[in-house]
Amino acid sequence: MSGLGFAKTPKPPYYAVIFSSQRNGKGEADYAAAAERMFELVVQQPGYLGVESARDTNGFGITVAYFDSEENILRWRNHAEHAATRARGKREWYEHFEVRVAKVERAYYGP
Amino acid sequence: MSGLGFAKTPKPPYYAVIFSSQRNGKGEADYAAAAERMFELVVQQPGYLGVESARDTNGFGITVAYFDSEENILRWRNHAEHAATRARGKREWYEHFEVRVAKVERAYYGP
Repeated sequence: MSGLGFAKTPKPPYYAVIFSSQRNGKGEADYAAAAERMFELVVQQPGYLGVESARDTNGFGITVAYFDSEENILRWRNHAEHAATRARGKREWYEHFEVRVAKVERAYYGP
Repeated sequence: MSGLGFAKTPKPPYYAVIFSSQRNGKGEADYAAAAERMFELVVQQPGYLGVESARDTNGFGITVAYFDSEENILRWRNHAEHAATRARGKREWYEHFEVRVAKVERAYYGP
């Protein structure tokens, strides 16, 4: 999931799912494969606009996925394979995580 | 700015400033000192709720700062030392960055 770079999002408004997580250091190969598969899936979802992700060397990471609507965020949340992988993540890969759903109102960039 | 861990935010609604950036690899010591100083300052700002930050080994990073209101986000944006440091960042430290201001509507956590 690393090395994705910047999301090319349209003009606001749109939605962001901010997922911050602390890895527990276990199951790295399985985790990496699952993250790769989730990325493969999310880009195909209705209303998907982009994703950005960074994880530091302490295993703390932030992934932000952008969608056009709350409806499509819920659709992705209810996607069967995604839900199963999230459940596995809870059990096996994360010490802790936080999810925040936010409406992007303004955006700018530089330099 | 790394190793901050999770922000302890109140119940939504509140605001998030999502700053994603690609470092250019230059001026690491100055950049690290400036990031440290900005963290020192931001926690003192009116309406500051928390911050989370991760940067990967490719120099791609996401920092999310949480505030209680758009008014206080603008106040921090207009803070003189912050503005000067941002200008320096644009010139010296970032290949590219994106800033998104979003209203957090829902939050949950686990496991």
